[in-house]
Amino acid sequence: NRQCPQLPSIFPALPANNTPRVTATADAQTPDNWLPRDPTLIRLTGKHPFNSEGYLTPLFDAGFITPAHLHVVRNHGAVPKISPDQAYADWKIRVHGLVQEELEFSIGELAERFQVVTLPVTICCAGNRRKEQNVVRKSLGFNWGAGGVSTALWTGVYLADVLDYVRPIRPRAKHVIFEGADDLPKGPYGTSQKLSWAADREKGMLIAWAMNGLALEPDHGFPVRVVMPGQIGGRMVKWLKRIEISETESNHYLHYWDNKVLPMQYTPEQAKDTPEIWYDPKYTITELNVNSAIAKPAHAEVLDVSNEDMASNAKTYDIQGYAYAGGGRRINRVEISLDHGKTWTLADVDYPEDHFRAAAFEHPVYGLVDLTARDTCFCWCFWTLRVPLAALARADVVALRAMDEGMNTQPRDMYLNATSMLNNWWFRVAVRKSAAADGVRLTFEHPAVVGQTMEGWMDRMKAEGRDVLNPVFSDAPQDQAESAAKP
Amino acid sequence: NRQCPQLPSIFPALPANNTPRVTATADAQTPDNWLPRDPTLIRLTGKHPFNSEGYLTPLFDAGFITPAHLHVVRNHGAVPKISPDQAYADWKIRVHGLVQEELEFSIGELAERFQVVTLPVTICCAGNRRKEQNVVRKSLGFNWGAGGVSTALWTGVYLADVLDYVRPIRPRAKHVIFEGADDLPKGPYGTSQKLSWAADREKGMLIAWAMNGLALEPDHGFPVRVVMPGQIGGRMVKWLKRIEISETESNHYLHYWDNKVLPMQYTPEQAKDTPEIWYDPKYTITELNVNSAIAKPAHAEVLDVSNEDMASNAKTYDIQGYAYAGGGRRINRVEISLDHGKTWTLADVDYPEDHFRAAAFEHPVYGLVDLTARDTCFCWCFWTLRVPLAALARADVVALRAMDEGMNTQPRDMYLNATSMLNNWWFRVAVRKSAAADGVRLTFEHPAVVGQTMEGWMDRMKAEGRDVLNPVFSDAPQDQAESAAKP
Repeated sequence: NRQCPQLPSIFPALPANNTPRVTATADAQTPDNWLPRDPTLIRLTGKHPFNSEGYLTPLFDAGFITPAHLHVVRNHGAVPKISPDQAYADWKIRVHGLVQEELEFSIGELAERFQVVTLPVTICCAGNRRKEQNVVRKSLGFNWGAGGVSTALWTGVYLADVLDYVRPIRPRAKHVIFEGADDLPKGPYGTSQKLSWAADREKGMLIAWAMNGLALEPDHGFPVRVVMPGQIGGRMVKWLKRIEISETESNHYLHYWDNKVLPMQYTPEQAKDTPEIWYDPKYTITELNVNSAIAKPAHAEVLDVSNEDMASNAKTYDIQGYAYAGGGRRINRVEISLDHGKTWTLADVDYPEDHFRAAAFEHPVYGLVDLTARDTCFCWCFWTLRVPLAALARADVVALRAMDEGMNTQPRDMYLNATSMLNNWWFRVAVRKSAAADGVRLTFEHPAVVGQTMEGWMDRMKAEGRDVLNPVFSDAPQDQAESAAKP
Repeated sequence: NRQCPQLPSIFPALPANNTPRVTATADAQTPDNWLPRDPTLIRLTGKHPFNSEGYLTPLFDAGFITPAHLHVVRNHGAVPKISPDQAYADWKIRVHGLVQEELEFSIGELAERFQVVTLPVTICCAGNRRKEQNVVRKSLGFNWGAGGVSTALWTGVYLADVLDYVRPIRPRAKHVIFEGADDLPKGPYGTSQKLSWAADREKGMLIAWAMNGLALEPDHGFPVRVVMPGQIGGRMVKWLKRIEISETESNHYLHYWDNKVLPMQYTPEQAKDTPEIWYDPKYTITELNVNSAIAKPAHAEVLDVSNEDMASNAKTYDIQGYAYAGGGRRINRVEISLDHGKTWTLADVDYPEDHFRAAAFEHPVYGLVDLTARDTCFCWCFWTLRVPLAALARADVVALRAMDEGMNTQPRDMYLNATSMLNNWWFRVAVRKSAAADGVRLTFEHPAVVGQTMEGWMDRMKAEGRDVLNPVFSDAPQDQAESAAKP
């Protein structure tokens, strides 16, 4: 049975499992040619290694819980080929270093010794929306659109419980290092966390072996991975083999040479020539920052607005999309501007994660699903703003920003950085107009899309030699500038 | 002995205790006329109730640990007059509601039953820098400058330990309500916290009876208060009498009608007429947001730069100030721009709080001072940028922004809101120029100062009928606009 086990109907529904049973043509000549993958996913680094996101609108339409086949994937090399037999009998996670008791656990032993739990968690690549920065300046990272984010139910045990069991030797023990089984030119993928965070159940970190109630797919870390809620995907080591409690951070190559937001003063070339900034803990990124995107209107969506619609507010359009924040913080407002940021309107925000707070539930696969005492928000939320068609047709640009409960807001300006990570300036969709038989035809342009032929407005403006960092969407010069809102 | 007990020299020094022994003239006719207060503090709400901040530069010069007499104070009414005899013999804190065991604790009982600990914590009013918003539009709150922030060593017990002891009845128990002994027209001051946060030692919440090693001064909550690190000052109830574990938030009047950042769409007048937004948990503020200010150059500081200095980079000036963030997050970069935000330079950041991480220490007054296993940053940090005098003289404005480890940054634009709270747009100091005998005279203008006669640049621009939200500091029109930085 390959379908996800359902939870009681008070919880969000599990999606149909539509992972293909056959390998994709694109993988025929790659080391991953044993792996079935959805052929509609956008491959961001050529055929191999596999790094993919779904198209934004189908991803959004898939709902709160993303099916595994549409879920964002970030691989650094070939996927370790591990048979189910190996996984459950022989796969051991070694926990060692500055602990009172070094131990090895199989998945079965973890499940037996500790409370099995399930949490809904949004996983998002730090590169989500990177393409926009890459239009401005080619950076040290490949193009992600705004679909580098997904949500699933993750089942496993709390890392905090495991750490409690092995008893770290404090205060010398400061970091927890995770290492996967992938075989990369500079060694396996690995990274680390602060012990004080890893040992805190409220942070929700999991050693997880199931996704949406099914065994992990190989792209998602089969047989076991870590899940770090509210953090960038790059901290969630897959194919987990080893946990080391240490006085120092991980020495893994990509722990230092990736997942940083370096000061904007360094160009990509300067950054490459300045190793010490990669080793400066100030520039390590861990938590996601507040971010959001518009799924509807979709890129290249066309909408005809008749002269009659223009003359009344009767017909409306639902602008929709997602938002998320880091560190368990809740999104408390989402705002849309149709006038270059001069005024903003609050969108309605829906938090499907809240349904899990209504009741605790025990399940043979999911274990304890209990968010009743949790105030953390580890998942994306969805928002809607209904606007008259006429208002949309009068706009040059739809601008979006979200704010979290810590009052962190998406900035008007891009923080251009060498790796182009955590890009979260306002998400802007241009509204292009042309004549229609009866009224005006609107064509919507997202900023910088991947996987399609039609360019985004940033690509277009750049080709036109215009300033994409201070974009002007209007033809009326006195009305162009994005300035601070007036009282 | 009224001097603060010193810690070993590896820790930051405790300041001299210079609280006057006599009452201030200003208090002669107020209910607080029994209380000694520093007469140099700026009284922000007339003589009474006492709400005060220190002048920014002396506050900064006082160093990492603020002496009690300079520490920010926020009172809603008369200070409860409690004698030391009452405080230690009769003062009881009642802990009740959804707990397995209702209890009352005296300070002595708390100290006996739980580990006594000391944490350095920055306390900051949510209104810090409010005056800037009040220049734009009069809001529902009085004028704070940028001195509404201070740091002290707070001694007490972890709230988490006390909650653990009384055993909240979860999952019904969701909130922890705190109530003080002040006598206000609409009842005592009170507010609440999420239980999940209050029960988490990592959040560092304290029931505290000492400040810098001395009994609390009456203005700071004598005999006992709560201290909520990383949060707005308004959550730190003074003269603590009662802790209630509850299914719902506090019903105290000012829990609802204060400490919100309401959507910018509501003017102060509209907000007053819309009770439901005050009761909407989305707009409650708890954690501080990232913020910073320039202490040097001070407001109205004058600096002569000679023609010789203008021709070389030999002579320099150290621009300095503070920065802080909320929720225990660390400030990871502080940037200064001298060209209207077009380029930014990283300042050096000093974290005195880090000295406490070097070793644990046990002390008869402070109890356990142990930050060795803590990664939280609950205190302000200080930053310095050395610039040539010539560069300063060429600038029209010094702009400042900080960023925390969650990649939250101070925005270019003001988020104007009905209570004017958590104002954290770039801190800008205007550089005004006039002729000097040999060269140029610089006069520095802070945005909107309190307690002095010379106006800030916002006051000045407003009087001139200019747009203070999109300020122009330069006389050269082509060089005025604050636009996104270019690669």
